[in-house]
Amino acid sequence: MKNIGILGSTGSIGTQTLQVINSFKQDFKIIYLTANNNVELLIKQSLQYKPKYVCIVNESKVKQLTEKLSNLNCKIISGREGLLEIASCNEIDICVNALVGSSGMEPTVNSLKAGIDVALSNKESMVMAGEYINKLKNKNNCSIYPVDSEHSAIWQCLRGEDFQEIRKLILTGSGGPFLKRDQKSFEDITISEALNHPNWTMGKKITIDSATMMNKGLEVIEAKWLFDISPEKIDIIVHPQSIIHSMVEFIDGSIKAQLGTPNMKIPIQYALTYPKHFKSDWEELNLAKIGSLTFEKPNTKKFKCIELAYYAMSAENSFSVVLNVANDNTVNAFLNQKIKFNDIAKLNELAMEKHPVTAVNDLETIEELTIWTENFIKEQV
Amino acid sequence: MKNIGILGSTGSIGTQTLQVINSFKQDFKIIYLTANNNVELLIKQSLQYKPKYVCIVNESKVKQLTEKLSNLNCKIISGREGLLEIASCNEIDICVNALVGSSGMEPTVNSLKAGIDVALSNKESMVMAGEYINKLKNKNNCSIYPVDSEHSAIWQCLRGEDFQEIRKLILTGSGGPFLKRDQKSFEDITISEALNHPNWTMGKKITIDSATMMNKGLEVIEAKWLFDISPEKIDIIVHPQSIIHSMVEFIDGSIKAQLGTPNMKIPIQYALTYPKHFKSDWEELNLAKIGSLTFEKPNTKKFKCIELAYYAMSAENSFSVVLNVANDNTVNAFLNQKIKFNDIAKLNELAMEKHPVTAVNDLETIEELTIWTENFIKEQV
Repeated sequence: MKNIGILGSTGSIGTQTLQVINSFKQDFKIIYLTANNNVELLIKQSLQYKPKYVCIVNESKVKQLTEKLSNLNCKIISGREGLLEIASCNEIDICVNALVGSSGMEPTVNSLKAGIDVALSNKESMVMAGEYINKLKNKNNCSIYPVDSEHSAIWQCLRGEDFQEIRKLILTGSGGPFLKRDQKSFEDITISEALNHPNWTMGKKITIDSATMMNKGLEVIEAKWLFDISPEKIDIIVHPQSIIHSMVEFIDGSIKAQLGTPNMKIPIQYALTYPKHFKSDWEELNLAKIGSLTFEKPNTKKFKCIELAYYAMSAENSFSVVLNVANDNTVNAFLNQKIKFNDIAKLNELAMEKHPVTAVNDLETIEELTIWTENFIKEQV
Repeated sequence: MKNIGILGSTGSIGTQTLQVINSFKQDFKIIYLTANNNVELLIKQSLQYKPKYVCIVNESKVKQLTEKLSNLNCKIISGREGLLEIASCNEIDICVNALVGSSGMEPTVNSLKAGIDVALSNKESMVMAGEYINKLKNKNNCSIYPVDSEHSAIWQCLRGEDFQEIRKLILTGSGGPFLKRDQKSFEDITISEALNHPNWTMGKKITIDSATMMNKGLEVIEAKWLFDISPEKIDIIVHPQSIIHSMVEFIDGSIKAQLGTPNMKIPIQYALTYPKHFKSDWEELNLAKIGSLTFEKPNTKKFKCIELAYYAMSAENSFSVVLNVANDNTVNAFLNQKIKFNDIAKLNELAMEKHPVTAVNDLETIEELTIWTENFIKEQV
């Protein structure tokens, strides 16, 4: 029996994590759940899983939560402070960090500080604070289990292997909804077009990131830190069917890949059950039915965000922080119809250009860069 | 430094093994080489690699070999007896069994009896004597390292994994040169058509086996014994590009695959360097250039040999022995223009039907079945 805490239990990864846990009731116990805003679902989940702690970040929803869970023997906490507090909880075996965006980074840090292994869906944690988090993880002898399908694939391919023998990590990406769209009409992309991902059902932020391919860029940076690999050893290949989730090429030319249906429950489950595979009955991959898997080079002229990510990796770590925070805010501005689709990459780049370049050795620097970037994007929008 | 013996050094796998060893002169030393007939190449190889022992099976070529190697401080042996003797040599770390056909089985047994690990290209060893060989291997605490690209792929995918968590082994097969050819015209298939494999450059026997897809059938039986997996857990999928060399599906739905250019040197090298990957400069796989990988179900009506293999696996082990020996002889008869392409499967099936069904617990039984089958095919041809 593993004790589990879920940060962001009402989001896409959070709800799918609970679906996985539902299949293995004897193996997992929920100790805490947290949500940002969606109090209705948080209440429902709490009544079902009876966690010891429940946290709602939006303070205005505390009253509703408290009332509905009054019969439950659980402690209710709230606000950003509450979230950071519960992330430090050491009564669990694994913290599933399913938070979206930059604000998910500090909870990762808190979990690791408490000596807790993290099943990490929040890629922004590694993008912003990869070096800091790796030091912390090693110091506290903790593990980070990747939940992203690409990083889970690489992690699975590296099982039993010597990292020194890696020639290349090859991240696959669907190319998003605009792979075939002419760049000239990128100006006209609507929110609903950008939210219409061909393969994966995901949250809004990551769906837009797929459309700009910023997602792949952030994943490259995440991979750099998760697997301690130098940037020039990380490649991207466009694979529209999202069946091969990523690959590892070894120095002898042998390549291992991990495949599956585009179902996040498989990597989520593996992060929870590692080092074991648990028997599940998710739909099986049928390659003969799919028929064909295709591959092409990513067009980094069209999807500028990929280039930005590679540039950020090669420079001081402040570039990654700024790129990530800028992107959080430009995506948000796009979703709120304040900027056009093209502006996401443009403003991300501008923020990188203009920011005060610095080494990143502590959380304070990240915090300062975050505030600078938020203000910068606010001014631009 | 590993000491290597090569059984069948002048064949396709043998010569490629020497090419691999050429790249790592500091890491491998050739202790023995053997050839069936090709004395010219054996002489050339011997002069280059200066083995301690050289064996030619065809006795009529001993004189020529002895003369040409007179300046070399090496012991020359000959005949089938000599081959079986050298296979028992325990002055090596790995025996590469690159022999073709049923006659490669006993040398595998002899190596394992001598406590030597075997890099096994001779799939007939496992097809005919899998159960016996596995017992011997376990008793003598030896390993078999697969050299076949499919089994190497599975072996690599299983690295670090628990065999209990396998749902399925999925062997890929190119489908051979007649994948798209109408079965009605199978009668008319010529030798040169059958020898024209789309992806792999291999020996004649295995190339014909690819054309009938008997090769895939034999590989399924080999996989059963190599990985101790029940037949219903082994699938075949046709993948004409031969880029994914095989896959393993785990019980959680996650699939691992091993990929590479169709280059036997990669699996040969891995068998020699295991558990390490050695840096090599074979041509790298470029998926974007390849563009598309396709998959389809195998047509077991058209490629009857696959069905025969599955049947053999589900029945007494004598079926596998007879199928394998029959196929050795029918392929030979086809290559000698004594039977038509279609007759290969027909006669293989007939031999299975008519043979004296028996349990296979020792080499004597295999020998008796071999003789029975050789005679049976001789009568039919």
